[in-house]
Amino acid sequence: MSSNPTADLRAAIRSIPDYPRPGVMFRDITTLLGNARAFRRAVDELVQPWPGAKIDKVAGIEARGFILGGAVAHQLSAGFVPIRKKGKLPRDTVSLPYSLEYGLDAIEMHRDAIDTGERVILVDDLIATGGTATAAVDLLRRIGAEVVAAVFVVDLPDLGGAEKLRAKGVTVRTLVSFEGE
Amino acid sequence: MSSNPTADLRAAIRSIPDYPRPGVMFRDITTLLGNARAFRRAVDELVQPWPGAKIDKVAGIEARGFILGGAVAHQLSAGFVPIRKKGKLPRDTVSLPYSLEYGLDAIEMHRDAIDTGERVILVDDLIATGGTATAAVDLLRRIGAEVVAAVFVVDLPDLGGAEKLRAKGVTVRTLVSFEGE
Repeated sequence: MSSNPTADLRAAIRSIPDYPRPGVMFRDITTLLGNARAFRRAVDELVQPWPGAKIDKVAGIEARGFILGGAVAHQLSAGFVPIRKKGKLPRDTVSLPYSLEYGLDAIEMHRDAIDTGERVILVDDLIATGGTATAAVDLLRRIGAEVVAAVFVVDLPDLGGAEKLRAKGVTVRTLVSFEGE
Repeated sequence: MSSNPTADLRAAIRSIPDYPRPGVMFRDITTLLGNARAFRRAVDELVQPWPGAKIDKVAGIEARGFILGGAVAHQLSAGFVPIRKKGKLPRDTVSLPYSLEYGLDAIEMHRDAIDTGERVILVDDLIATGGTATAAVDLLRRIGAEVVAAVFVVDLPDLGGAEKLRAKGVTVRTLVSFEGE
């Protein structure tokens, strides 16, 4: 095992060429999740800057963000808030559209999921163009959350999502970066 | 706070009448997940019988089972394996159909997600008729997993799912039961 956690995590991610279509390199984190040591290390590293900070809630983006978000919430002894695709939550929601390659979709959260001023960390597995993540930050702020940080295992910096979040004043933490590939 | 963890967890679950349709009482666990103390307690209680047992992997069922499963895997220092709806996983999968109210759907997992003989705990938020959970157990056994237990926060015993799993020789643990309602 290397003493560089980033190298270990990078090695635990499986890269799949031409998925879901020709020319795209898919970064598959299921191999990292399935590796007990890598999974634990990823969770530790994601929240390493906020060990003593009181975090009230961890918000995870459906669906892979639920896995990491559940673990991060457990690690921080925080509550967990799901940010879901449209129509999945049973009570009053707030929702925001975000752009897909073709057209729009929307994400939702329960209107009463977070109290004004609560400190929240947003979690997802990967940030690419940042469409979902920026919508999630806007949604969290709209219901009065203080977004302490947005954290992701994988960054695809060529697609600019992390930069977009930072431009909105969000502290962004990513662990493994795949550039120019 | 009561000294009865089950009572505390039950109180943290929100019941929504006539959702998703008239006559159905929906058990909404997002209020439990969002309550830091209840969330931590649910995770502790789910795995309480297996503190020293070596668990290799925790398998979570999409999507709410990802939240609890991620936390349970973190608690046990195990790897996490997603059991997903059809067509969501990028590599070779094994899949099994299960019955819905109208027609069939299928769940899938990566064929290489678990090695033969690995000890696995299956996690979901709720067990009702057990259609998805029994398919998940069959899938895990098909790829050689030893299913140590299947654990759920909520049991709806009138619908017989937990009984169906026990009839297959699975150890089932549930925390809160809603009967005859």
